[in-house]
Amino acid sequence: MKWTQARRAEKMNPSVIREILKVTEKPGIISFAGGLPSPKTFPVAAFAAACEKVLREDGQAALQYAASEGYGPLREMVAAMLPWDVNPAQVLITTGSQQGLDLVAKVLIDEGSRVLVETPTYLGALQAFTPMEPDIVSVASDDEGVKIADLAAKAAGARFLYVLPNFQNPTGRSMSEARRAALSAEAARIGLPLVEDNPYGDLWFDAPPPLPLTARNPAGCVYLGSFSKVLAPGLRLGFLVAPPAIFPKLLQAKQAADLHSPSLNQRLVAEVMKGGFLDRHVPTIRALYKSQLAAMLAAMKREMPAGVEWNTPAGGMFLWMRLPAGMNAIELLPLAVERNVAFVPGWAFYAGDADARTLRLSFVTSSVAQIDIGIAALADAVRHCRPATAAHEAIGAGVL
Amino acid sequence: MKWTQARRAEKMNPSVIREILKVTEKPGIISFAGGLPSPKTFPVAAFAAACEKVLREDGQAALQYAASEGYGPLREMVAAMLPWDVNPAQVLITTGSQQGLDLVAKVLIDEGSRVLVETPTYLGALQAFTPMEPDIVSVASDDEGVKIADLAAKAAGARFLYVLPNFQNPTGRSMSEARRAALSAEAARIGLPLVEDNPYGDLWFDAPPPLPLTARNPAGCVYLGSFSKVLAPGLRLGFLVAPPAIFPKLLQAKQAADLHSPSLNQRLVAEVMKGGFLDRHVPTIRALYKSQLAAMLAAMKREMPAGVEWNTPAGGMFLWMRLPAGMNAIELLPLAVERNVAFVPGWAFYAGDADARTLRLSFVTSSVAQIDIGIAALADAVRHCRPATAAHEAIGAGVL
Repeated sequence: MKWTQARRAEKMNPSVIREILKVTEKPGIISFAGGLPSPKTFPVAAFAAACEKVLREDGQAALQYAASEGYGPLREMVAAMLPWDVNPAQVLITTGSQQGLDLVAKVLIDEGSRVLVETPTYLGALQAFTPMEPDIVSVASDDEGVKIADLAAKAAGARFLYVLPNFQNPTGRSMSEARRAALSAEAARIGLPLVEDNPYGDLWFDAPPPLPLTARNPAGCVYLGSFSKVLAPGLRLGFLVAPPAIFPKLLQAKQAADLHSPSLNQRLVAEVMKGGFLDRHVPTIRALYKSQLAAMLAAMKREMPAGVEWNTPAGGMFLWMRLPAGMNAIELLPLAVERNVAFVPGWAFYAGDADARTLRLSFVTSSVAQIDIGIAALADAVRHCRPATAAHEAIGAGVL
Repeated sequence: MKWTQARRAEKMNPSVIREILKVTEKPGIISFAGGLPSPKTFPVAAFAAACEKVLREDGQAALQYAASEGYGPLREMVAAMLPWDVNPAQVLITTGSQQGLDLVAKVLIDEGSRVLVETPTYLGALQAFTPMEPDIVSVASDDEGVKIADLAAKAAGARFLYVLPNFQNPTGRSMSEARRAALSAEAARIGLPLVEDNPYGDLWFDAPPPLPLTARNPAGCVYLGSFSKVLAPGLRLGFLVAPPAIFPKLLQAKQAADLHSPSLNQRLVAEVMKGGFLDRHVPTIRALYKSQLAAMLAAMKREMPAGVEWNTPAGGMFLWMRLPAGMNAIELLPLAVERNVAFVPGWAFYAGDADARTLRLSFVTSSVAQIDIGIAALADAVRHCRPATAAHEAIGAGVL
């Protein structure tokens, strides 16, 4: 049988994280690798009550085909909870915010289209964009996000800039108010559309993040949101907000992709959110994650050898660590797994040249006791990791 | 703001059916237009019980991220229920079988790739394939499906043939055993992959359909299945079975599209299906749909003027009707809507030249009483529809 695959299929590769997670599948391992929310935060009882009510009162509609745009009351709730004036008609319910990225790619990327991303950036976005065969260009970034001068130098002809301004995956960093204002102004000046991904924005610890970029210029942005981090990821529900210039095409792409997101799940989320549930529930997630980050930071300070650096995220799920000069996070991984602790090498998150010294640690999946043990084990692995030669770094990258 | 859309976005058009359904949104209208299963067949109580059990016993896992391949027990159930030897490792759970079409398009279609379809064919497949910019070629078809001689003449360089052998949408026709055998042999001889879509196969009335094409040559086929017609479409769950030659790429495309299908929904379906539920439930759907088809056929025979033709499907949800020579189903539609009855002009389902005299009638959404009234109204509309000139036909097509 002659299966001729599309050119794009050759460019699709197994998720690096997926492959890494396989390496780290070992009974009893403490994993800082995954991006899984703490299941303790899932409001199981609220969903059980919602299931009972929705199926009793509206069972046939909850199990029937529905509109591609999404369930009307849920679209209205989404519009109402966003911090700018959103018309529910511009809200599209998606099968997780990952689908939002897929739809954006289909509607905005041709083969060879220039697409700008942060350095480093969310791996799932790279995976969603790649099948449409773009030329992905990394914009230099610092602790506050993309650098405006480098953006201006690289923006000519770009279809859009993809940014994750709040508690970014993988770095945990956030874009300051000043950087947002500058980016928004520059994007408007050069006519560059922004695709703003905000799955973690509600998970702030001490103060809410500055206004989204989309709030500053709704006509120039697609905004992606998710229920995965504030309710539960297993429902696969997210949303996008897009201006009239491209909403109809995103809707058509959505219809061709899966007709609509599950009717039952949309009604469950709308039912659970009634009466301000998120206002009571999300603070409990913030408090838990804040305490877990504090535990991880304390353990890092206590355990890590000199020369190891890390940041202090103001929210979200991830912390970014950097090894001493000459070390390579890919070479560190087997030493860590031997010691029953796992992480994701930062290498996986770069569209261009990677900083091989970086790695991502999730502080939300493990308990405080596990964090203490895991960070001590990771520090021990670092102490046993020999500085790599340039040749070693290349081999490490090639093998992974 | 400079939104530059992908070339493929220009090729994406609002669903014709969607636009037609808008025209027919009128209180009290009897609609034979939609493809909605009868909500009376949805096992609401079984899903309510499953929700309660799954969330009580396994709530955190049901609400957490999960494997892109799908929920293990569900993959095993799918493999076990198919009428050939299927390894669960080759089963991928999808967000409705529509997503299966999207994944197939991404993995197998380049711009300009030749893709073969039946005449007419499922509109949702055309919508899923179009964004990848194929050259879609209609293979001549008769009451038994694609004609082998025309297939052989058009197959050179084709990436695959898309077929819906059982109670096809839109025509309701089925492929005979002889035609399946001939098609399977010819496809194997010329090395042409088949994409076999089987959402309606379980909805047979008097006897099950012949073996799927995939059962005859699993290495040469992708098989798409769905829970929408035997359980409920609002869960958005389907599956595909693909050979090792392309399964990994379909899995990677799935991961990039929405990470995985909803964990909760997969567990609900697995829970409901335990203990042979479908063996008891599906016969009740068959009996209902068979009685509704009988009512529609009787009404057609009683009401339709001479020269109107229709077929007698052996299962499924749709019947195919053909107007007398010179009439045009697009011109008939407003006359029908005036009389409170709706259908879909066959025009929407052709990749190439359409037979403008055809139209699709669903016999499953309306009650027998509605069918009697609706078919009488449709017959009255036909009697008032003047034969179109060739110019009228062209205008009708252009306007829609």
